[in-house]
Amino acid sequence: MANRTVFIVSDRTGITAETLSHALLTQFPTINFTTVALPFVDTSEKALETLQRVNQDAQQSGIRPLVFTTFIDDELRSTVASGDGVFFDMFEAFIGPLERELGVESSHTVGKSHGVIDPDEYTSRIGAVNYSMRTDDGVSMTEYNRAGIIILGVSRSGKTPTCLYLALHFGIYAANYPITEEDLDRGRLPDDVIQSRKKLFGLTIDPERLRQIREERRANSRYAQLRQCRYEVAQAVALFRREGIPYIDVTAMSIEEIGTTILHKARMRRQLY
Amino acid sequence: MANRTVFIVSDRTGITAETLSHALLTQFPTINFTTVALPFVDTSEKALETLQRVNQDAQQSGIRPLVFTTFIDDELRSTVASGDGVFFDMFEAFIGPLERELGVESSHTVGKSHGVIDPDEYTSRIGAVNYSMRTDDGVSMTEYNRAGIIILGVSRSGKTPTCLYLALHFGIYAANYPITEEDLDRGRLPDDVIQSRKKLFGLTIDPERLRQIREERRANSRYAQLRQCRYEVAQAVALFRREGIPYIDVTAMSIEEIGTTILHKARMRRQLY
Repeated sequence: MANRTVFIVSDRTGITAETLSHALLTQFPTINFTTVALPFVDTSEKALETLQRVNQDAQQSGIRPLVFTTFIDDELRSTVASGDGVFFDMFEAFIGPLERELGVESSHTVGKSHGVIDPDEYTSRIGAVNYSMRTDDGVSMTEYNRAGIIILGVSRSGKTPTCLYLALHFGIYAANYPITEEDLDRGRLPDDVIQSRKKLFGLTIDPERLRQIREERRANSRYAQLRQCRYEVAQAVALFRREGIPYIDVTAMSIEEIGTTILHKARMRRQLY
Repeated sequence: MANRTVFIVSDRTGITAETLSHALLTQFPTINFTTVALPFVDTSEKALETLQRVNQDAQQSGIRPLVFTTFIDDELRSTVASGDGVFFDMFEAFIGPLERELGVESSHTVGKSHGVIDPDEYTSRIGAVNYSMRTDDGVSMTEYNRAGIIILGVSRSGKTPTCLYLALHFGIYAANYPITEEDLDRGRLPDDVIQSRKKLFGLTIDPERLRQIREERRANSRYAQLRQCRYEVAQAVALFRREGIPYIDVTAMSIEEIGTTILHKARMRRQLY
C-alpha cells in the first residue's frame, strides 16, 4: 500500500479542514494516509514551524505530503503554502467565488465558525445536553413535554449516543426510552411514553449485531443470547408498526448518519452550531 | 440585510457539506442566509425534485440560491448542478486534483466518510460515550485507570459537554470530576483524582459568565452569587497551578473549540470518526 502523509493545518480548531479532508481521503482506500493535525497555527512562528515540518516530511519520505488548510489569515496561509506539500486550502477555493457572487468581501474574521460563541446558543446546546443526560434510559419521563424527540429502542440499540449527538450538534432536547421486556410482553408502551406519540422515533437493529454488542457488555448472559435479541427486536418492530411510530434500522449506520436520518425523517429543522 | 437561500445537498448525510458551508458563510455576516438541508438525495427522482426546488426559489426570490453539495454520484450531481443555483461541489473541487496527485482514481463509493461503519470503531466510540456517562460528575472514580483524560472544574464550567464531545468524536475515554467547595476549602483534590495526575486537565471560566449560567440553573441561590463564583474560580485556578495541572479558560469557547484545544494541549492523538 502506498503511504502518504497528510497535514491538517488551521489558524483555528481545524475542524472544518478535518471533516472535509476525512471525507475526501476515504475516497482513496488504496492509500495509507498518516494524518497530522496542527490546529491553532496563529502566529508567523508557528506557520514557519509548520512549513519546516512539511518540508522535512517531503524530504524524508521523498513524496510530497498533502496539506489541507483552512486559514483565515492570508499571510499565514501563504507561508504554509510556500512549502513542498501539495496544498489545498478549503476556504480559498470557495471564498473568492462566493465574494464575487455575493458582491461583498468576506470578513476574514477568524473563527466565527466554531469559535466566538453566542452565549444564548451555547446555553441552549448545554441545556439540550443536560436534558438528554437527565432523561437518559427512561428516567424523568415527566419531562417529556419539553422533548423535541423521544428515541425508543431495546437495550443497546444506540439510543444514548444518538440523543447526545442530537443534543450536542443541533441543540435538540432528545430523550430516550428503553423498551423493556415487560413492555414487549404486554405489547404496549407506558402511558407517559404513548402520550407523546408525535415525538416518538424508533431504532431497530439486526439481532446478530445486537447479540455481539450485548455480549461485550454482559458475556454469556440470557440478555445477550441470539434468541433473546431476536425476540426483542421482532416485538419492538411489531410495536412500532402497530403504534405508527416511524423507525429506522441502525445496523450499518454511524452515529452521525443515525442522527441526520432521524432529523430528516422527523422533518426537524437542522441548526448546526 | 440582503437575503440569500442556501441549499445543502448530498446523496449521503450532508454533514461534510454542512460543516464546510457553515464555516464559509460565517465569513459573510452582512448576508442573511436561510439554509435548507436536503440529505439523502440518492435517486434520480430526488435529484429532479431538488432541482425544481432550487429553480423555484431562484424564480420566486429573483436571486440565485447558493447550492453546496457533496455528491459521490456524478449523474445526481450533474442533475442538481444544471439548475439556476450557484453551484459549489465540495468533492469535485478537490477530488480531481487529488486523483492526479495520488495517481489513482477515487473509489466513488458512497459514504465511507460518515457512512459504512467499522463495527470495532463503532464499539469503541460507544464504549467511550458509555464511559463518559458512567463517570460523569465524579462518579465511578475507581474507573479512572481506564480514562484517557480527566476533566476538572467547578460546577457548570462545561465539563460534561466537553467529555461527551471528546467521546463521541474522538472515541476518547473522558471522565470528569467536579471540584467541590470542600476540595477548595481543603486546598486539595481527593486521592483518587490526584493519583491520575498525568491525565488531569482543568477548565476555568470567567466568574461573571459562571454566575449567569448558574443563575439559570438555580436562581437567587448562594451557588449563583458572583462572590461565590469568584471564590470558587480563584481557588480552582490556584489549585491547578499548585498541582501543575494544565488548564484553559473556556469563557469564549465553543464546545468544539474546548475539545480540540484540550486534545492539542494534552498532545493526544486525534482520530476523527
